[in-house]
Amino acid sequence: MSRSPGRKQENHKISRELFVLTYGALVAQLCKDYEKDEDVNACLDRMGYSIGIRLIDDFLARSAVKRCRSYSETADVIAQVAFKMYLGVTPSVSCSSATGNEFSLILDKNPLVDFVEELPAERASLCYCNLLCGVIRGALDMVHLEAEVTFLQDRLKGDAVTEIGITFLRKPEDRKHRRN
Amino acid sequence: MSRSPGRKQENHKISRELFVLTYGALVAQLCKDYEKDEDVNACLDRMGYSIGIRLIDDFLARSAVKRCRSYSETADVIAQVAFKMYLGVTPSVSCSSATGNEFSLILDKNPLVDFVEELPAERASLCYCNLLCGVIRGALDMVHLEAEVTFLQDRLKGDAVTEIGITFLRKPEDRKHRRN
Repeated sequence: MSRSPGRKQENHKISRELFVLTYGALVAQLCKDYEKDEDVNACLDRMGYSIGIRLIDDFLARSAVKRCRSYSETADVIAQVAFKMYLGVTPSVSCSSATGNEFSLILDKNPLVDFVEELPAERASLCYCNLLCGVIRGALDMVHLEAEVTFLQDRLKGDAVTEIGITFLRKPEDRKHRRN
Repeated sequence: MSRSPGRKQENHKISRELFVLTYGALVAQLCKDYEKDEDVNACLDRMGYSIGIRLIDDFLARSAVKRCRSYSETADVIAQVAFKMYLGVTPSVSCSSATGNEFSLILDKNPLVDFVEELPAERASLCYCNLLCGVIRGALDMVHLEAEVTFLQDRLKGDAVTEIGITFLRKPEDRKHRRN
Protein backbone atom coordinates (compact mmCIF):
# COMPACT_ATOMS: atom_id res chain seq x y z
CA MET A 1 0.00 0.00 0.00
CA SER A 2 1.52 3.29 -0.98
CA ARG A 3 0.98 6.27 1.29
CA SER A 4 1.36 9.94 0.75
CA PRO A 5 3.90 11.57 3.10
CA GLY A 6 1.25 13.63 4.89
CA ARG A 7 -0.96 10.64 5.65
CA LYS A 8 0.11 10.13 9.25
CA GLN A 9 -0.95 13.63 10.22
CA GLU A 10 -4.57 12.88 9.37
CA ASN A 11 -7.38 12.08 11.67
CA HIS A 12 -7.62 8.30 11.68
CA LYS A 13 -10.59 8.09 13.98
CA ILE A 14 -14.27 7.93 13.32
CA SER A 15 -17.25 7.50 15.60
CA ARG A 16 -17.80 4.05 17.02
CA GLU A 17 -21.58 4.43 16.82
CA LEU A 18 -21.52 4.81 13.05
CA PHE A 19 -19.28 1.78 12.73
CA VAL A 20 -21.39 -0.34 15.06
CA LEU A 21 -24.60 0.49 13.19
CA THR A 22 -22.97 -0.09 9.79
CA TYR A 23 -21.63 -3.42 10.98
CA GLY A 24 -25.13 -4.28 12.17
CA ALA A 25 -26.48 -3.52 8.70
CA LEU A 26 -23.87 -5.85 7.21
CA VAL A 27 -24.79 -8.73 9.54
CA ALA A 28 -28.52 -8.13 8.92
CA GLN A 29 -27.93 -8.27 5.16
CA LEU A 30 -26.04 -11.56 5.47
CA CYS A 31 -28.85 -12.96 7.61
CA LYS A 32 -31.22 -12.12 4.74
CA ASP A 33 -28.83 -13.73 2.24
CA TYR A 34 -28.12 -16.95 4.13
CA GLU A 35 -30.59 -19.10 5.94
CA LYS A 36 -28.06 -21.02 8.02
CA ASP A 37 -26.15 -19.29 10.82
CA GLU A 38 -23.08 -21.32 9.87
CA ASP A 39 -23.09 -19.75 6.41
CA VAL A 40 -23.39 -16.24 7.86
CA ASN A 41 -20.52 -17.01 10.27
CA ALA A 42 -18.37 -18.36 7.44
CA CYS A 43 -19.11 -15.33 5.27
CA LEU A 44 -18.24 -12.90 8.09
CA ASP A 45 -15.01 -14.82 8.67
CA ARG A 46 -14.11 -14.65 4.96
CA MET A 47 -14.89 -10.93 4.81
CA GLY A 48 -12.82 -10.37 7.95
CA TYR A 49 -9.93 -12.32 6.43
CA SER A 50 -9.94 -10.04 3.36
CA ILE A 51 -9.95 -7.02 5.67
CA GLY A 52 -7.15 -8.44 7.84
CA ILE A 53 -4.78 -9.03 4.94
CA ARG A 54 -5.20 -5.36 3.95
CA LEU A 55 -5.22 -3.91 7.47
CA ILE A 56 -1.90 -5.48 8.47
CA ASP A 57 0.12 -2.98 6.36
CA ASP A 58 -1.68 -0.10 8.02
CA PHE A 59 -1.07 -1.70 11.42
CA LEU A 60 2.65 -2.26 10.90
CA ALA A 61 3.12 1.25 9.51
CA ARG A 62 1.25 3.00 12.33
CA SER A 63 2.17 0.84 15.31
CA ALA A 64 5.89 0.54 14.59
CA VAL A 65 5.69 -2.85 16.30
CA LYS A 66 8.80 -4.97 15.85
CA ARG A 67 8.91 -8.67 15.05
CA CYS A 68 7.41 -10.71 17.90
CA ARG A 69 9.64 -13.39 19.37
CA SER A 70 6.94 -15.64 20.78
CA TYR A 71 3.28 -16.51 20.38
CA SER A 72 2.72 -14.95 23.77
CA GLU A 73 4.21 -11.63 22.64
CA THR A 74 2.08 -11.78 19.48
CA ALA A 75 -1.10 -12.30 21.50
CA ASP A 76 -0.16 -9.33 23.72
CA VAL A 77 0.42 -7.12 20.67
CA ILE A 78 -2.97 -8.08 19.21
CA ALA A 79 -4.72 -7.22 22.48
CA GLN A 80 -2.78 -4.20 23.66
CA VAL A 81 -1.82 -2.53 20.38
CA ALA A 82 -4.17 -3.72 17.62
CA PHE A 83 -7.45 -3.84 19.56
CA LYS A 84 -6.62 -0.53 21.20
CA MET A 85 -5.77 1.08 17.87
CA TYR A 86 -8.71 -0.22 15.87
CA LEU A 87 -11.51 -0.68 18.38
CA GLY A 88 -10.46 1.48 21.30
CA VAL A 89 -10.57 -1.39 23.80
CA THR A 90 -7.91 -3.62 25.35
CA PRO A 91 -8.87 -7.23 26.01
CA SER A 92 -7.03 -9.16 28.69
CA VAL A 93 -4.93 -12.08 27.47
CA SER A 94 -4.58 -15.52 28.99
CA CYS A 95 -2.62 -18.50 27.79
CA SER A 96 -4.92 -21.48 27.81
CA SER A 97 -2.63 -24.40 27.01
CA ALA A 98 0.48 -26.01 28.36
CA THR A 99 1.88 -26.14 24.82
CA GLY A 100 1.95 -22.32 24.72
CA ASN A 101 0.17 -21.86 21.41
CA GLU A 102 -3.41 -21.25 22.61
CA PHE A 103 -4.49 -17.87 23.87
CA SER A 104 -7.71 -16.19 24.88
CA LEU A 105 -8.56 -12.53 24.40
CA ILE A 106 -11.18 -11.65 26.98
CA LEU A 107 -13.40 -8.64 26.47
CA ASP A 108 -15.50 -7.40 29.38
CA LYS A 109 -17.24 -5.21 26.87
CA ASN A 110 -17.50 -5.82 23.17
CA PRO A 111 -17.50 -2.50 21.31
CA LEU A 112 -19.26 -4.03 18.28
CA VAL A 113 -22.51 -4.89 20.04
CA ASP A 114 -23.47 -1.52 21.51
CA PHE A 115 -26.90 -1.44 19.91
CA VAL A 116 -27.56 -5.18 19.95
CA GLU A 117 -29.77 -6.33 22.81
CA GLU A 118 -29.70 -10.07 22.15
CA LEU A 119 -29.69 -12.42 19.20
CA PRO A 120 -33.10 -13.42 17.85
CA ALA A 121 -34.13 -16.94 18.93
CA GLU A 122 -33.88 -18.27 15.39
CA ARG A 123 -30.30 -17.07 15.12
CA ALA A 124 -28.92 -18.87 18.18
CA SER A 125 -25.79 -20.12 16.39
CA LEU A 126 -24.86 -16.77 14.87
CA CYS A 127 -21.39 -15.53 15.80
CA TYR A 128 -22.37 -11.89 15.45
CA CYS A 129 -18.82 -10.54 15.62
CA ASN A 130 -17.19 -13.29 13.56
CA LEU A 131 -15.69 -10.64 11.27
CA LEU A 132 -13.17 -9.95 14.05
CA CYS A 133 -11.94 -13.55 13.98
CA GLY A 134 -11.40 -13.30 10.25
CA VAL A 135 -9.56 -9.98 10.60
CA ILE A 136 -7.15 -11.47 13.17
CA ARG A 137 -6.64 -14.63 11.08
CA GLY A 138 -6.00 -12.62 7.90
CA ALA A 139 -3.57 -10.21 9.55
CA LEU A 140 -1.64 -13.06 11.20
CA ASP A 141 -1.48 -14.94 7.91
CA MET A 142 0.27 -11.98 6.32
CA VAL A 143 3.05 -12.15 8.90
CA HIS A 144 3.34 -15.90 8.27
CA LEU A 145 1.50 -17.00 11.39
CA GLU A 146 -1.22 -19.48 10.66
CA ALA A 147 -3.90 -19.50 13.32
CA GLU A 148 -7.39 -20.67 14.11
CA VAL A 149 -9.48 -17.86 15.57
CA THR A 150 -12.95 -18.47 17.01
CA PHE A 151 -15.36 -17.16 19.59
CA LEU A 152 -15.24 -19.32 22.72
CA GLN A 153 -17.67 -17.23 24.77
CA ASP A 154 -20.05 -14.48 23.77
CA ARG A 155 -21.98 -12.12 26.03
CA LEU A 156 -24.64 -11.92 23.31
CA LYS A 157 -25.29 -15.60 24.01
CA GLY A 158 -25.51 -15.13 27.76
CA ASP A 159 -21.88 -15.81 28.66
CA ALA A 160 -20.28 -13.65 31.35
CA VAL A 161 -17.61 -12.30 29.00
CA THR A 162 -16.73 -12.35 25.34
CA GLU A 163 -13.73 -14.59 24.66
CA ILE A 164 -11.86 -14.96 21.39
CA GLY A 165 -9.63 -18.02 21.16
CA ILE A 166 -6.47 -17.91 19.07
CA THR A 167 -4.64 -21.17 18.38
CA PHE A 168 -1.34 -20.71 16.59
CA LEU A 169 -0.75 -23.63 14.27
CA ARG A 170 2.79 -24.85 14.31
CA LYS A 171 4.07 -25.56 10.87
CA PRO A 172 5.91 -28.82 10.15
CA GLU A 173 9.08 -26.88 9.22
CA ASP A 174 9.00 -25.17 12.66
CA ARG A 175 9.38 -28.51 14.35
CA LYS A 176 12.07 -29.57 11.92
CA HIS A 177 14.08 -26.39 12.60
CA ARG A 178 13.71 -26.91 16.30
CA ARG A 179 15.03 -30.45 16.08
CA ASN A 180 18.10 -29.33 14.11
CA MET B 1 -32.24 4.90 23.66
CA SER B 2 -31.30 4.40 27.30
CA ARG B 3 -27.72 5.04 28.37
CA SER B 4 -25.79 4.17 31.45
CA PRO B 5 -24.56 7.25 33.34
CA GLY B 6 -20.90 6.46 32.65
CA ARG B 7 -21.40 6.21 28.91
CA LYS B 8 -20.10 9.66 28.02
CA GLN B 9 -16.73 8.98 29.58
CA GLU B 10 -16.03 6.16 27.16
CA ASN B 11 -13.87 6.16 24.10
CA HIS B 12 -16.23 6.79 21.22
CA LYS B 13 -13.63 6.53 18.51
CA ILE B 14 -12.46 3.65 16.39
CA SER B 15 -10.04 3.42 13.51
CA ARG B 16 -11.24 4.78 10.20
CA GLU B 17 -9.38 2.07 8.29
CA LEU B 18 -11.43 -0.71 9.90
CA PHE B 19 -14.64 1.16 9.16
CA VAL B 20 -13.69 1.87 5.56
CA LEU B 21 -12.81 -1.77 4.89
CA THR B 22 -15.96 -3.04 6.63
CA TYR B 23 -18.06 -0.62 4.60
CA GLY B 24 -16.33 -1.89 1.48
CA ALA B 25 -17.29 -5.46 2.42
CA LEU B 26 -20.91 -4.33 2.81
CA VAL B 27 -21.00 -2.68 -0.62
CA ALA B 28 -19.30 -5.70 -2.21
CA GLN B 29 -21.90 -8.01 -0.66
CA LEU B 30 -24.75 -5.87 -2.01
CA CYS B 31 -23.13 -5.89 -5.45
CA LYS B 32 -23.22 -9.70 -5.24
CA ASP B 33 -26.86 -9.61 -4.12
CA TYR B 34 -28.18 -7.13 -6.68
CA GLU B 35 -27.39 -7.03 -10.34
CA LYS B 36 -28.56 -3.46 -10.93
CA ASP B 37 -26.62 -0.51 -9.51
CA GLU B 38 -29.91 1.25 -8.81
CA ASP B 39 -30.94 -1.58 -6.48
CA VAL B 40 -27.62 -1.43 -4.62
CA ASN B 41 -27.98 2.35 -4.30
CA ALA B 42 -31.54 2.01 -3.00
CA CYS B 43 -30.49 -0.65 -0.51
CA LEU B 44 -27.58 1.46 0.79
CA ASP B 45 -29.96 4.40 1.14
CA ARG B 46 -32.48 2.29 3.09
CA MET B 47 -29.77 0.91 5.37
CA GLY B 48 -28.45 4.42 5.92
CA TYR B 49 -31.94 5.65 6.75
CA SER B 50 -32.28 2.97 9.47
CA ILE B 51 -28.89 4.01 10.84
CA GLY B 52 -29.79 7.71 10.75
CA ILE B 53 -32.99 7.31 12.73
CA ARG B 54 -30.97 5.59 15.48
CA LEU B 55 -27.89 7.81 15.29
CA ILE B 56 -29.83 11.05 15.82
CA ASP B 57 -30.36 10.35 19.54
CA ASP B 58 -26.66 9.79 19.98
CA PHE B 59 -25.94 12.96 18.02
CA LEU B 60 -28.31 15.17 20.01
CA ALA B 61 -27.03 13.74 23.32
CA ARG B 62 -23.35 14.19 22.48
CA SER B 63 -23.39 17.39 20.45
CA ALA B 64 -25.71 19.40 22.70
CA VAL B 65 -26.83 21.18 19.54
CA LYS B 66 -29.92 23.34 20.05
CA ARG B 67 -32.88 23.58 17.69
CA CYS B 68 -31.85 25.08 14.36
CA ARG B 69 -33.76 28.16 13.22
CA SER B 70 -33.18 27.83 9.50
CA TYR B 71 -32.34 25.30 6.82
CA SER B 72 -29.02 27.08 6.44
CA GLU B 73 -28.19 26.56 10.12
CA THR B 74 -29.22 22.90 9.84
CA ALA B 75 -26.91 22.38 6.85
CA ASP B 76 -24.04 23.98 8.80
CA VAL B 77 -24.66 21.72 11.79
CA ILE B 78 -24.65 18.62 9.57
CA ALA B 79 -21.34 19.65 8.00
CA GLN B 80 -19.50 21.18 10.94
CA VAL B 81 -20.78 19.11 13.86
CA ALA B 82 -22.17 15.80 12.55
CA PHE B 83 -19.60 15.06 9.82
CA LYS B 84 -16.81 16.13 12.15
CA MET B 85 -18.13 13.94 14.98
CA TYR B 86 -18.85 10.81 12.97
CA LEU B 87 -16.39 10.87 10.08
CA GLY B 88 -13.68 13.25 11.26
CA VAL B 89 -14.03 15.56 8.26
CA THR B 90 -15.79 18.89 7.72
CA PRO B 91 -17.35 19.45 4.30
CA SER B 92 -17.85 23.01 3.09
CA VAL B 93 -21.46 24.11 2.65
CA SER B 94 -22.98 26.13 -0.14
CA CYS B 95 -26.55 27.16 -0.70
CA SER B 96 -27.46 26.26 -4.24
CA SER B 97 -30.91 27.76 -4.70
CA ALA B 98 -32.56 31.14 -4.47
CA THR B 99 -35.39 29.55 -2.49
CA GLY B 100 -32.97 28.74 0.33
CA ASN B 101 -33.86 25.07 0.73
CA GLU B 102 -31.14 23.45 -1.38
CA PHE B 103 -27.63 22.97 -0.03
CA SER B 104 -24.47 21.22 -1.07
CA LEU B 105 -21.94 19.57 1.22
CA ILE B 106 -18.64 19.54 -0.62
CA LEU B 107 -15.96 17.08 0.40
CA ASP B 108 -12.45 17.56 -0.97
CA LYS B 109 -11.71 14.14 0.45
CA ASN B 110 -14.20 11.41 1.12
CA PRO B 111 -13.13 9.40 4.16
CA LEU B 112 -15.15 6.35 3.06
CA VAL B 113 -13.19 5.65 -0.11
CA ASP B 114 -9.63 5.40 1.23
CA PHE B 115 -9.01 1.97 -0.20
CA VAL B 116 -11.16 2.30 -3.32
CA GLU B 117 -9.23 3.13 -6.45
CA GLU B 118 -12.11 3.46 -8.88
CA LEU B 119 -15.44 1.81 -9.57
CA PRO B 120 -15.39 -1.21 -11.87
CA ALA B 121 -16.59 -0.39 -15.41
CA GLU B 122 -19.71 -2.53 -14.99
CA ARG B 123 -20.69 -0.59 -11.87
CA ALA B 124 -20.68 2.88 -13.41
CA SER B 125 -24.00 3.92 -11.81
CA LEU B 126 -23.10 2.76 -8.32
CA CYS B 127 -23.29 5.48 -5.66
CA TYR B 128 -20.66 3.84 -3.50
CA CYS B 129 -21.26 6.04 -0.45
CA ASN B 130 -25.04 6.19 -0.74
CA LEU B 131 -25.35 4.99 2.86
CA LEU B 132 -24.36 8.52 3.90
CA CYS B 133 -27.34 10.02 2.06
CA GLY B 134 -29.65 7.62 3.85
CA VAL B 135 -28.09 8.43 7.23
CA ILE B 136 -28.62 12.18 6.72
CA ARG B 137 -32.17 11.65 5.45
CA GLY B 138 -33.05 9.37 8.39
CA ALA B 139 -31.56 11.68 11.01
CA LEU B 140 -33.33 14.74 9.54
CA ASP B 141 -36.61 12.84 9.42
CA MET B 142 -36.41 12.23 13.16
CA VAL B 143 -36.22 15.97 13.80
CA HIS B 144 -39.22 16.48 11.48
CA LEU B 145 -37.24 17.74 8.50
CA GLU B 146 -38.09 15.90 5.35
CA ALA B 147 -35.29 16.07 2.80
CA GLU B 148 -34.02 14.55 -0.42
CA VAL B 149 -30.34 13.66 -0.15
CA THR B 150 -28.33 12.53 -3.16
CA PHE B 151 -24.82 12.53 -4.55
CA LEU B 152 -24.43 15.32 -7.12
CA GLN B 153 -20.72 14.76 -7.77
CA ASP B 154 -18.42 11.91 -6.86
CA ARG B 155 -14.64 11.81 -7.10
CA LEU B 156 -14.93 8.05 -7.60
CA LYS B 157 -16.64 8.86 -10.89
CA GLY B 158 -13.99 11.31 -11.99
CA ASP B 159 -15.55 14.50 -10.62
CA ALA B 160 -13.22 17.07 -9.04
CA VAL B 161 -14.95 16.87 -5.63
CA THR B 162 -17.58 14.81 -3.87
CA GLU B 163 -20.81 16.75 -3.46
CA ILE B 164 -23.86 15.71 -1.49
CA GLY B 165 -27.03 17.63 -2.28
CA ILE B 166 -29.65 18.19 0.43
CA THR B 167 -33.04 19.57 -0.60
CA PHE B 168 -35.31 20.35 2.34
CA LEU B 169 -38.90 19.65 1.36
CA ARG B 170 -41.29 22.26 2.62
CA LYS B 171 -44.43 20.73 4.00
CA PRO B 172 -47.85 22.08 2.96
CA GLU B 173 -48.63 23.05 6.57
CA ASP B 174 -45.45 25.20 6.66
CA ARG B 175 -46.81 27.36 3.87
CA LYS B 176 -50.23 27.47 5.48
CA HIS B 177 -48.76 28.65 8.80
CA ARG B 178 -46.75 31.26 7.01
CA ARG B 179 -49.82 32.63 5.25
CA ASN B 180 -51.74 32.94 8.52
